[in-house]
Amino acid sequence: MNTVYNFSSGPSMLPEEVLVKARLELLDYRNTGCSVMELDCNSPEYLELMDECETALRALMNIPPNYRILFLPGGISTQFSAIPQNLMSDHRTADYVITGQYSKKAYLEAKKYGDIAIAASSAGASPTFSTVPELKSSDFRPDADYVHICYNSSIYGTRFSKVPEMGSIPLVAEMSSCMLSEPVDLSKFALIYASAEQNMGIAGLTVVILRDDLIGGARPDTPAVLDYKIQLQNRSMLDTPPAFAIYMMKLVLEWTLENGGLEEMKRRNERKAGVLYDYLDSQQYYTAPVDIKCRSMTNVHFVTGDAKLDEKFVAEAKKAGIIGISGHKSVGGMCASLYNAMPLFAVEKLIEFMTDFANDNTKLSGY
Amino acid sequence: MNTVYNFSSGPSMLPEEVLVKARLELLDYRNTGCSVMELDCNSPEYLELMDECETALRALMNIPPNYRILFLPGGISTQFSAIPQNLMSDHRTADYVITGQYSKKAYLEAKKYGDIAIAASSAGASPTFSTVPELKSSDFRPDADYVHICYNSSIYGTRFSKVPEMGSIPLVAEMSSCMLSEPVDLSKFALIYASAEQNMGIAGLTVVILRDDLIGGARPDTPAVLDYKIQLQNRSMLDTPPAFAIYMMKLVLEWTLENGGLEEMKRRNERKAGVLYDYLDSQQYYTAPVDIKCRSMTNVHFVTGDAKLDEKFVAEAKKAGIIGISGHKSVGGMCASLYNAMPLFAVEKLIEFMTDFANDNTKLSGY
Repeated sequence: MNTVYNFSSGPSMLPEEVLVKARLELLDYRNTGCSVMELDCNSPEYLELMDECETALRALMNIPPNYRILFLPGGISTQFSAIPQNLMSDHRTADYVITGQYSKKAYLEAKKYGDIAIAASSAGASPTFSTVPELKSSDFRPDADYVHICYNSSIYGTRFSKVPEMGSIPLVAEMSSCMLSEPVDLSKFALIYASAEQNMGIAGLTVVILRDDLIGGARPDTPAVLDYKIQLQNRSMLDTPPAFAIYMMKLVLEWTLENGGLEEMKRRNERKAGVLYDYLDSQQYYTAPVDIKCRSMTNVHFVTGDAKLDEKFVAEAKKAGIIGISGHKSVGGMCASLYNAMPLFAVEKLIEFMTDFANDNTKLSGY
Repeated sequence: MNTVYNFSSGPSMLPEEVLVKARLELLDYRNTGCSVMELDCNSPEYLELMDECETALRALMNIPPNYRILFLPGGISTQFSAIPQNLMSDHRTADYVITGQYSKKAYLEAKKYGDIAIAASSAGASPTFSTVPELKSSDFRPDADYVHICYNSSIYGTRFSKVPEMGSIPLVAEMSSCMLSEPVDLSKFALIYASAEQNMGIAGLTVVILRDDLIGGARPDTPAVLDYKIQLQNRSMLDTPPAFAIYMMKLVLEWTLENGGLEEMKRRNERKAGVLYDYLDSQQYYTAPVDIKCRSMTNVHFVTGDAKLDEKFVAEAKKAGIIGISGHKSVGGMCASLYNAMPLFAVEKLIEFMTDFANDNTKLSGY
């Protein structure tokens, strides 16, 4: 039983029911007499697990049949490299939107493989990356092989409030920290990708969902493990697949379905984020530095305005059982990640702590 | 409690004590109040876990200080691509020894990045790959950036009985299925790599141990996640690390230390393999098709000589609680993998079953 409230941005908290189930069958998966970690990856039991995982994800996200799913080892940095190597088949040109560290890393990696431009950026915003740019199709080169965005930033607490319109240019979106937090109209995207350790499971596994017409154009020197066509032909198993991570994903996906699916997740997440933002907007002690139009529903960034006080907040929160609340080192302050597994009462607990902390720690004037 | 004997070549059986410990702390890792899967990868608890994992591996393998260790997501196919991109910094030339499917895949992948030659091969041996070539330094181009071998083959049940002498050419060895099965003199290798799911833990994690003078020569367009220098600078955490796989590895490494280390593993493994090979050599019903000089200590391949009988053997073995015994589809027959976690009594149980099966299933003459 979890005894703490874990607001970490990722890896992050898992539903307790999922952990209890995993513990229950850890030594004996479905009467095989062995752990899911010990299954031969070509065994019927493992292949069935893979199928169930894909079926659950398709059901949850209502994935159209012309979109294929890859379950790949590693995290999003691996995909920062795979995407340009697979998708720049026509003009070797792609446009990137910079809204934080991850989008910048994705951009720098893509530059190894083609003509990459920064089409828009919120780097100059004050405070840095506290907003996302408004995009219009004229921002992009019409012959770009694709446009890349990070849809939600767990570091900066921002997100695009709606899917940018790209016209005919394929839109590629990194979605790790908002995946499964609400329904997504996949027809607006050419490819989305997300690491598992926020709303889908545990670290070491990344999901790539891509339209099938984008498959097959990889550069000849693309590493086989990064070539989407080869991985699809090999059922994502060119490397021995991370079976335990696939298993945990299946359990989390099924938990999400059992809890009402993505419409219900959206309702809960809006409620949790609403309660916290309402509190932040109703007082003077803490500030939510993000542009109100771009506030993330899953990652709520706030500061006291005093770095030493922020530090004290994080330390005392930990003593009160509130962990993972520290903001990323590049932005400081605090960040409360409110993924699907986070119950509303934990957010209420956090607000209670914030209120007490504000009462007990008078700020020096000037802040 | 495991109720079956799992002879799978990988993913393979784990020590029961390790699984029991993992189950015990699955919901509460070291009184953090959360699972190890939920830990922030920058938290002190996670960084300590990484340190403990590396410390245990260094202690077990007696790794010299001028060798660095990487814990990377994915499996050996990822390294088939990383190795040529990192190590062909001087002459863009490497020599590969072909002893089975994996070494052939490694060779084909390397060909994307330089001038790669097959220096020796056992492809022509009859039956295919039932031996490994005797290597002498004159087989190799003196200006090769490295020579690549697969040290032990879990598919074919072969291994090099001693480390080939390369002179001054760096020797690179894939060691997944023999890693930690006996002590290794690392000074004879420039780089060794092994996936975790045989003797070190679970799938989704690969260990690379390399001499530090080899670091820093990657091609400019090497994906950052495959660049050893960049990964070392980032403590193998360019992607969010697969924390649960790291945790399981730490438990398995500590179990191996507690059980006497690699000298003791070698003693046990020689005993287990000896008992099984002795049985195979003492009767006529089953054949061990591998060249006696190259018999693997960890993967014992045998056949009845009748594909239908082999199939029946595998099916009846499963009913008797002996699983994962089927040979790879490319060689057929049976393969008993005897990794560190496999107790001697399970091998005795297997021999008992083999004896009964031979008595109960008379072969048609001609076999």
